[in-house]
Amino acid sequence: MTIAIVGTGLVGLGWAIVFARAGLPVRLHDKSPEQLKDAPNRMQQSLRDLAEYGLIQESPEEVLARCSCHEELAEALQGVGYVQESVLERVDVKQNLYKAMESCLAPHTIVGSSSSGIPASAFTQDISFRSRCLIAHPVNPPYLAPIVELVPASWTSTDTVDAVHQLMNRVGQHPIRVNRELEGFVLNRLQGVLLREAWALYDEGYCSLEDIDATISKGLGLRWSFMGPFETIDLNAPGGISDYAQRLGDLYLSIDKERTNPQPWSDELISKVEHERRQRLAASKLVERSNWRDRRMMALAAHKQHQEAQE
Amino acid sequence: MTIAIVGTGLVGLGWAIVFARAGLPVRLHDKSPEQLKDAPNRMQQSLRDLAEYGLIQESPEEVLARCSCHEELAEALQGVGYVQESVLERVDVKQNLYKAMESCLAPHTIVGSSSSGIPASAFTQDISFRSRCLIAHPVNPPYLAPIVELVPASWTSTDTVDAVHQLMNRVGQHPIRVNRELEGFVLNRLQGVLLREAWALYDEGYCSLEDIDATISKGLGLRWSFMGPFETIDLNAPGGISDYAQRLGDLYLSIDKERTNPQPWSDELISKVEHERRQRLAASKLVERSNWRDRRMMALAAHKQHQEAQE
Repeated sequence: MTIAIVGTGLVGLGWAIVFARAGLPVRLHDKSPEQLKDAPNRMQQSLRDLAEYGLIQESPEEVLARCSCHEELAEALQGVGYVQESVLERVDVKQNLYKAMESCLAPHTIVGSSSSGIPASAFTQDISFRSRCLIAHPVNPPYLAPIVELVPASWTSTDTVDAVHQLMNRVGQHPIRVNRELEGFVLNRLQGVLLREAWALYDEGYCSLEDIDATISKGLGLRWSFMGPFETIDLNAPGGISDYAQRLGDLYLSIDKERTNPQPWSDELISKVEHERRQRLAASKLVERSNWRDRRMMALAAHKQHQEAQE
Repeated sequence: MTIAIVGTGLVGLGWAIVFARAGLPVRLHDKSPEQLKDAPNRMQQSLRDLAEYGLIQESPEEVLARCSCHEELAEALQGVGYVQESVLERVDVKQNLYKAMESCLAPHTIVGSSSSGIPASAFTQDISFRSRCLIAHPVNPPYLAPIVELVPASWTSTDTVDAVHQLMNRVGQHPIRVNRELEGFVLNRLQGVLLREAWALYDEGYCSLEDIDATISKGLGLRWSFMGPFETIDLNAPGGISDYAQRLGDLYLSIDKERTNPQPWSDELISKVEHERRQRLAASKLVERSNWRDRRMMALAAHKQHQEAQE
């Protein structure tokens, strides 16, 4: 199956690596010829890092050799089995692109959007191939974080969801099925509730930013890097998850009852948090620290692969 | 400094390993002579596992040689610098123990409680040494998860918090300061809000348990195993955390507004979740899977040590 990547920003190129690494031919397209031209260079750097951490078996050049760049959208899409759309997160931009795709897609082609917040219904309603459209939302970069949220619109066919589920498994991702559209999908909702509590605890003076971060990175986040929250609590009471719910349900309900009046993060609070973060990490060091994060993600991916291979 | 461990259940013995591994003499006490007698055996098994994963530099026997068992509370506490109390999570049980400790503590001894929910004010109010009492809440097992929440009561002295902070750093833990008591402290509040959303998403039919779990273990939990939520979002927008807040604040607020009416996890929902988990993992396999979790925690701890040593 040939794959088309439309939009070659960070997310699009991350997807290109996922598919090319799995052995599939990949066609890249971007409305900016400059960005498109530079795509192989940018991919090569990531592929070298992956090779260094033992996360690809071939050379970066062998993986790259499966990718081609196409300035014409129609040429990029011709006869492909799957399109991963990763253009700007704006309804009008996506609407225009989907309209443009109508005339050049084969009748079987499926289109997954990397949208992290806009649901497929917002930009596929009037599109002739809307039953073959869905959200396939990754975590960045997808070649290190396997999760992909599949979120259908009400008119997305079950066959479409099944086919993308199968494709994602085939290329080494971990697809999950969200049964119908909802704000923030699943991943950002789970992140959002944790962030809300974290901001509130800081705002109310209970704890410093660093200490709240450590609660996750030296505590809760350890188990969550290989088990989800349900499995975690299922193993955290002798009698399993219902035993756990009996023991701790009241505590959690009482915590929830303190948070019934959602407030935006105020400008004042945001400034304070920004100031404290910049004391800890100067703005000029953000890129360097992001590179550190990427290396840690690579090392963690290699560690997890090794662990899972032993099981 | 000599340490006393009062209560030799899973948590107490975990702490004994933390202190003995760091080179400190450890006195163990339990009101059950049988449980106390068996403590070294149980510790030895964990110490062997730690040795296997390269997480202790000495032999299990060398670490164990620093520990002694004491049937008399007064003997265990005599002249120790710090007591880690890990008895049953019940106010009356803790109150009785703290009363009993009054007559046998040295005037400088500090007492940290492993309590995961009961605040220190609930069982130290009438105790003569209450200014030297606080909560020192670990994640289990503390020798693999370094986080320790230090939560003072209003009468806990600053010197006490400072001293325990220093001690925890010295023995390789990662202490955080919670500035005043609050329900669930910080760690369980963060876990609680995530669980609430996870249960609700399942209850409303958006996603299966396995898929919600995968959203964490194959997605969000990866970064959280080495960065907290604030650092994660600080690196997730080009302009840092305030840039991130501008971009995503509205989405998160809108998610929060859907959850203003906290409900207990109903018995029906708990039964359904329990049933689904037991289809996935039979009750007879809970112990085996918990052993798997412990091995994964060991391997992750070794991985993180290795990564941090390279930085």
